[in-house]
Amino acid sequence: MFAVDHVSHKFDDLIQHKIDQKTKPKGALGQLESLAKQVAQVQLSRDPKAKKLHITQPGLLVFAGDHGIAQYGVSIAPSEVTSQMVANFVHGGAAVNVFCRQMGFNLEVIDAGIMAPLGFNLEVIDAGIMAPLGLKGVTEHRLGNGTTAIHLAPAMTLEQVKQGFEAAHEVVERHVLSGCNLIALGEMGIGNTSSAAAIMAALLELDVNTCVGRGTGIDDKTLALKKALINEALKLHRPKLASPVHVLAYLGGFEIVQMTGAILAAAEQKILVLIDGFISTAAALVAVRLHPAARDYLVFAHESEEQGHKLMLTHLSAQPILSLGLRLGEGTGAALALPIVQAAVNFYNDMASFEDAGVKNVV
Amino acid sequence: MFAVDHVSHKFDDLIQHKIDQKTKPKGALGQLESLAKQVAQVQLSRDPKAKKLHITQPGLLVFAGDHGIAQYGVSIAPSEVTSQMVANFVHGGAAVNVFCRQMGFNLEVIDAGIMAPLGFNLEVIDAGIMAPLGLKGVTEHRLGNGTTAIHLAPAMTLEQVKQGFEAAHEVVERHVLSGCNLIALGEMGIGNTSSAAAIMAALLELDVNTCVGRGTGIDDKTLALKKALINEALKLHRPKLASPVHVLAYLGGFEIVQMTGAILAAAEQKILVLIDGFISTAAALVAVRLHPAARDYLVFAHESEEQGHKLMLTHLSAQPILSLGLRLGEGTGAALALPIVQAAVNFYNDMASFEDAGVKNVV
Repeated sequence: MFAVDHVSHKFDDLIQHKIDQKTKPKGALGQLESLAKQVAQVQLSRDPKAKKLHITQPGLLVFAGDHGIAQYGVSIAPSEVTSQMVANFVHGGAAVNVFCRQMGFNLEVIDAGIMAPLGFNLEVIDAGIMAPLGLKGVTEHRLGNGTTAIHLAPAMTLEQVKQGFEAAHEVVERHVLSGCNLIALGEMGIGNTSSAAAIMAALLELDVNTCVGRGTGIDDKTLALKKALINEALKLHRPKLASPVHVLAYLGGFEIVQMTGAILAAAEQKILVLIDGFISTAAALVAVRLHPAARDYLVFAHESEEQGHKLMLTHLSAQPILSLGLRLGEGTGAALALPIVQAAVNFYNDMASFEDAGVKNVV
Repeated sequence: MFAVDHVSHKFDDLIQHKIDQKTKPKGALGQLESLAKQVAQVQLSRDPKAKKLHITQPGLLVFAGDHGIAQYGVSIAPSEVTSQMVANFVHGGAAVNVFCRQMGFNLEVIDAGIMAPLGFNLEVIDAGIMAPLGLKGVTEHRLGNGTTAIHLAPAMTLEQVKQGFEAAHEVVERHVLSGCNLIALGEMGIGNTSSAAAIMAALLELDVNTCVGRGTGIDDKTLALKKALINEALKLHRPKLASPVHVLAYLGGFEIVQMTGAILAAAEQKILVLIDGFISTAAALVAVRLHPAARDYLVFAHESEEQGHKLMLTHLSAQPILSLGLRLGEGTGAALALPIVQAAVNFYNDMASFEDAGVKNVV
């Protein structure tokens, strides 16, 4: 349902020349230079006549969903925390709110299928903490009341995956119509590192031990249980994983499905996608398996503490921007990385060239 | 001439409790948490009644100086490029200008002792490139027309070191009086990685091969020459290096002396200092040797590409914020790291606590 094209390489030489003529030794801005090149490729693919690079109306989409497997003791927190945190997002008090305000992100929270109806949670929360920044509430794109526990049955149906893709498509299209040309992804979902690790193990054909980590901080006993249940899930479903869409249906989460859809919708629109941590990267892995060209639009914000993240990043040839030992999710890493992407845009647009500045070009 | 006290640890428990009560698993914001703790320690040491953390009027000081050793072929560029780049700073076209504008830094460029008189360069430069952001010109704190080549004679006199400290003290005090509570350091000086590597080798008693790198990008032959000359310099001066001040006088640069002074002046004022790359870190090493308490105020912005930087950072128990493969200097890494320091301040000030948000605290 998505038509994703590679970026154009027509302007590559021109882009590289522009970067190399800036008043600095060649390559001296390191990763900012490869970032500027990618942004230029993406934005010149969208508009070959663009005179400057720019980031406009950046949107951070936080998809929330619950996971049946969480009922079996694989997380530090019970599933209710998902909806409590969604309420916290709405009231502006979570880390992702703070960072979105600072970085200028338009934050949208999407209920992709959390367990408890949200109205209940909104009532019990003290609303007096902070004024939300343009955050009116939650977009209801519920695919169900949490997924089925993946070690017992498929997480969801193929029809639900399709619905999730369509819902995400709608959200991204709305942002693009409002002038957004960069989408960042975040998530909230107790149990979702289990789903992400299962997806990783299935798609990369890796041992569960390599893929499963401590999430937001489980102990050894819980980790052993988590690994055992994910192994059961893989044993149960592996014969039926005919395509990446099947991987989502059997092992996924409602928020992971919608993140995958959002990535593909953004790539279709030829806009940048800022990927957050372990869960977002699992969604990116599925998206790139479905449409390899989607990779061209992905910028990887950070390397998280979660075991397995580094391996997925390597598999995607991704060089993350930050490495701050984050393990919170919510899109916090993506929000924090935006100023670096903006800095790449700014040096590309605004630095003087050797000729402009009368500086001797020695390299 | 500087009176530097350690930060107070009176509020450490209170600070840690405040961080741990935020709506996130303990430690989930990784390095941002240790950063917030350090900022809180520094700012509560300055004002024990402070209600919130804050960064106000951040100042980025770029110290420029020339190096006698550059005449002997250790760099990719000739010394004239130092003053050409200073002129580029004044006209707003360099990378550091672009990043200061983006991040909200007040940029001040200090001529600590470049070779060519600046007036000349300002004339030959086309002034039409960009409107500088409040950058009127260059602060003239010249200690000479470049240092003496360190492999032949002392770089400067002890009196010049003292003058450099006084000049830096004046600059920092002026910023503090204007409401600045964070100083970032940058530099420009063809040949200054040679001086910084020599300082590192002398203070850490390391082999030259461990300390000397490719600067902004020299080839193997130039690298071998650079190592040989630095070895000569160390052989010549080692017996006389009685104190860190002597290390500066015999092996230093005018900009490195003033950076050291700026660090100590800022630490005396109990404000944060954001250290940039290899050269700034060498200045930090000298400052901490002179006044170990100065370390409490230092935040390390990034790990550069320069060989030896990592080792100095380890020696200073520093965990850099960014690692983007930068090798430009100018304070570019420091400028890029500010939003992350600001994010640490913001989550500390503005995130809801578990109690505020009605979220179950499970960890």
